[in-house]
Amino acid sequence: MDKIGIEEMIRSLGRLRAEDMYLNDFFLTWDKSDDEIQATYKVAEILRALRQNNISTNVFDSGLAISLFRDNSTRTRFSYASAANMLGLEIQDLDEGKSQIAHGETVRETANMISFMADVIGIRDDMYIGKGHTYMQEVSQSVYQGYLDGVLEQRPSLVNLQCDIDHPTQSMADMAHIINHFGGVENLKGKKIAMTWAYSPSYGKPLSVPQGIVGLMSRFGMDVSLAHPEGYNIMPEVEQVAATNSERSGGSFNRVNSMEEAFQDADIVYPKSWAPFSVMEERTKLVEQGDDAGLKALEQRGLENNKKYMDWECTEDLMKKTREGNALYMHCLPADITGVSCERGEVEASVFDRYRVPLYKEASYKPYIIAAMIFMSKFKNPSDKLLQLLQSGNNRIL
Amino acid sequence: MDKIGIEEMIRSLGRLRAEDMYLNDFFLTWDKSDDEIQATYKVAEILRALRQNNISTNVFDSGLAISLFRDNSTRTRFSYASAANMLGLEIQDLDEGKSQIAHGETVRETANMISFMADVIGIRDDMYIGKGHTYMQEVSQSVYQGYLDGVLEQRPSLVNLQCDIDHPTQSMADMAHIINHFGGVENLKGKKIAMTWAYSPSYGKPLSVPQGIVGLMSRFGMDVSLAHPEGYNIMPEVEQVAATNSERSGGSFNRVNSMEEAFQDADIVYPKSWAPFSVMEERTKLVEQGDDAGLKALEQRGLENNKKYMDWECTEDLMKKTREGNALYMHCLPADITGVSCERGEVEASVFDRYRVPLYKEASYKPYIIAAMIFMSKFKNPSDKLLQLLQSGNNRIL
Amino acid sequence: MDKIGIEEMIRSLGRLRAEDMYLNDFFLTWDKSDDEIQATYKVAEILRALRQNNISTNVFDSGLAISLFRDNSTRTRFSYASAANMLGLEIQDLDEGKSQIAHGETVRETANMISFMADVIGIRDDMYIGKGHTYMQEVSQSVYQGYLDGVLEQRPSLVNLQCDIDHPTQSMADMAHIINHFGGVENLKGKKIAMTWAYSPSYGKPLSVPQGIVGLMSRFGMDVSLAHPEGYNIMPEVEQVAATNSERSGGSFNRVNSMEEAFQDADIVYPKSWAPFSVMEERTKLVEQGDDAGLKALEQRGLENNKKYMDWECTEDLMKKTREGNALYMHCLPADITGVSCERGEVEASVFDRYRVPLYKEASYKPYIIAAMIFMSKFKNPSDKLLQLLQSGNNRIL
Repeated sequence: MDKIGIEEMIRSLGRLRAEDMYLNDFFLTWDKSDDEIQATYKVAEILRALRQNNISTNVFDSGLAISLFRDNSTRTRFSYASAANMLGLEIQDLDEGKSQIAHGETVRETANMISFMADVIGIRDDMYIGKGHTYMQEVSQSVYQGYLDGVLEQRPSLVNLQCDIDHPTQSMADMAHIINHFGGVENLKGKKIAMTWAYSPSYGKPLSVPQGIVGLMSRFGMDVSLAHPEGYNIMPEVEQVAATNSERSGGSFNRVNSMEEAFQDADIVYPKSWAPFSVMEERTKLVEQGDDAGLKALEQRGLENNKKYMDWECTEDLMKKTREGNALYMHCLPADITGVSCERGEVEASVFDRYRVPLYKEASYKPYIIAAMIFMSKFKNPSDKLLQLLQSGNNRIL
Repeated sequence: MDKIGIEEMIRSLGRLRAEDMYLNDFFLTWDKSDDEIQATYKVAEILRALRQNNISTNVFDSGLAISLFRDNSTRTRFSYASAANMLGLEIQDLDEGKSQIAHGETVRETANMISFMADVIGIRDDMYIGKGHTYMQEVSQSVYQGYLDGVLEQRPSLVNLQCDIDHPTQSMADMAHIINHFGGVENLKGKKIAMTWAYSPSYGKPLSVPQGIVGLMSRFGMDVSLAHPEGYNIMPEVEQVAATNSERSGGSFNRVNSMEEAFQDADIVYPKSWAPFSVMEERTKLVEQGDDAGLKALEQRGLENNKKYMDWECTEDLMKKTREGNALYMHCLPADITGVSCERGEVEASVFDRYRVPLYKEASYKPYIIAAMIFMSKFKNPSDKLLQLLQSGNNRIL
Repeated sequence: MDKIGIEEMIRSLGRLRAEDMYLNDFFLTWDKSDDEIQATYKVAEILRALRQNNISTNVFDSGLAISLFRDNSTRTRFSYASAANMLGLEIQDLDEGKSQIAHGETVRETANMISFMADVIGIRDDMYIGKGHTYMQEVSQSVYQGYLDGVLEQRPSLVNLQCDIDHPTQSMADMAHIINHFGGVENLKGKKIAMTWAYSPSYGKPLSVPQGIVGLMSRFGMDVSLAHPEGYNIMPEVEQVAATNSERSGGSFNRVNSMEEAFQDADIVYPKSWAPFSVMEERTKLVEQGDDAGLKALEQRGLENNKKYMDWECTEDLMKKTREGNALYMHCLPADITGVSCERGEVEASVFDRYRVPLYKEASYKPYIIAAMIFMSKFKNPSDKLLQLLQSGNNRIL
């Protein structure tokens, strides 16, 4: 995109109603209006175009971007760091191991203590059902209260870097990939996307990716097909979100019991392992009870149960069932690739290899999506600020 | 504070004699003159006001702020990071675990090796009596020598982020809180502050907070009352500092044996647990001898001894004894709150809750105090530089 | 160096052919032409002079400098951080422990996933023969492929922060030290440098330093003397590099069996412990086989064997054999100093002490050498950019 293209996109951004994102958090995509989702996408694209044109996107002269990862992360960690850096914020990671967080110290206290110069807080807390989203809300309310009380001089906005319910930076990056692949959001109507479970030799993968995908992709008039073995349900409230979205957008949402059915004539397939909702709920309870033996037994049972569905694998044969055998294969990465990262996994090596470059491109949207989320939460009038950046002509590299 | 207010404050800063802080360290508040303490406070206030007015405080185009935490930290770690960031310095943490610091490598060598582009070094080393301050001095002398020898191109200044003797970034932040609470340093004369021991179920809390408080608050003509159970003495040399300060400032310093006496008519109360000096000294020796059994026994004895004084708790009843039942309750946080973070602790939950917002504000001064310490050590003429920032009109956020 | 001196040096830089360094990696010094080595040295000197003149060297408005340390590091870690910071890049460390790098995830995938906004990647991977350099090449090829595929918007260049073969940031810093000590590269012709093994009570020190030294110092017409006990050979291919370099540069390269012989009339001595190549090769195999018992036995044998050569120590007596008893003593640090960091080590304490300041200065070149490597890889016309910095007159410190 050249500068004229950027300017046009900025102007089209200005026509969207997204002012409620100002000084607000990004928890769940379904909290956001269609205009807000679209505006976030546009800001991401504009920031990317500015950077590609070697134009500075540095809007903060100083300020911190706090991160808190309660689960391992490479992709999201680096994406968040990249997003913060391109806007001028410095990462400060809260390593709960190295911190003096007293036994019983309230979330409210910790949240305020780390936020005196925080403009944004990014959190990953995806391990336990009923926990992550709740925790993020508590952090958000705490710093908002701190701001109202005059403890904090700015209101830090919160970005959900994966919780128990949604993984919006992933699903929005996936959305950007789909929009660009199909040449525009207007081309998604009537396309079929298959979000399907797939076998993996690992246990306890979060539900937030499938939930995020059906919760978001149901907004664009697509036919969303969710497939999983019996018992591998996602959270019922997210299914409800998908159903409501589909109705409103003129698409459909249905649940099927086989990959074959989901893949049939699909334009997009997203085969990925996850743990059953009921198992995740049980795990949360056992963790609360400190029942280590119970947890081990549960894991064992979970892995055994997974093994019944080893044939849930995205094979070349299955891919042939998709629209013209040519569906867009997607994954949040890292994938469990048969014969590469494990004996039997989510996807056949040849399928993965064929889609490697698109998969990496899919991932490349995440830094910009996160940057856009931060940007929208920090500027009342984002299009003005983006125009200012464009016109300033400051270089990213001298 | 608006821009005119800032300009006035900068002018009043210019009238203080604080040039010895230039290229110097901040170890102990009692190393500093009254003018220097006041200047640090003023610079902190000015930096805060600039930031509140969205004016850039970025004085370093590049440069590192080294941190070394030999004890856990959240508040101070984030405060130091915030201070560095608002001035344009990037944090580089020395994680002694991940470092190739050879067995027997001298402090002098390590200090120089990490300082080639260090403008400031912040250290927390508060665990062992006779160690922390000594270590910081050795680092300071090492990098000063390195500067004189032409090894380092700039002289990194050292900021004490808590040692065995003092915790100046805490006490100075507390001071800023008190000054603002009472509407000016001139209003502190004759006020009574009670620095008292309080029960906590934990062992071995550093003495640097009570020492820092009596060592600093005795400078403003206040009546400083230090209360603790028998045997819970602080370092005698710091008591001496407090006594001398009080005499010079026209206040008083006395030690009493009960919270009740200390709280009586107090304007400010600071109830907080610490380990007895003699226990801390014994611990240091046992650590040097590598006597793990001895250390365990000492901890056991320490905890047992603490339990004799479980009634040293800041209760609502005790608070009623303070001036108009309305003293300013202070704590460096995190506090051990009865029924919240422990069964029995330093403070009753309702007292803590009532003072939560002021407590968080108390903590909010620390980033600015640290930034001011760095600023004073880096600029010969801080008021000129602050004026330059004010007049430049560069925004913190676009 | 004043501004006129800087301008002259920039002009002389412009006369060197180093454009192949643009968008290229720095793996081994012997991959680079003489002009490229000299250009890197000059850029390092210019960057240093700019900083000394308080002129900003900030060429990146945003961007990440990724680091990956697979072995402990203090000096190089801080040097890399300093280099990145002075150019405007922010460090993002890949901590393989905290990362979600799936079992079996390909290097290609990880390399791309962390590089969306990476301008440079610095890696230390020096523990296993045949591994480090290979890994770095794989990373480099992966991100280059990512760039060609449109996954990455810029091509991150790779800086070798120590591999199994070479330690170019060390040897180049050492070279800068030597050039400055002897008053110019033209004065090195005919000088004798002794790279000799020395005893240390530790096991398995990498070969990359001695290899780096003989591989680089053989380029300047010096007489390079490599000394080690029988069996402590370095990699034969690096010996070959040194031999070829020496012939081309009009110097000499020879291997001798005693420190005495190497020190005789030496202008420079570099006594340092390393593990024998054959032991390192065996270790790699045992690691691959997961043979822990074998590794322990090998370590035991290695340490026992070292002990036969405890007299390989850089003593005052040995120093007297050097040219006028006055050779430049060098070490990459930390050194094993007899009676200081160990009972018997690489060097007598009095020798080390006498050379402490020059040793620290030797280390001080590393940040600038790394910055120069990054600079050369990022700008097609480095002299233009340096002139721009000089003329901009932006201050490093306000």
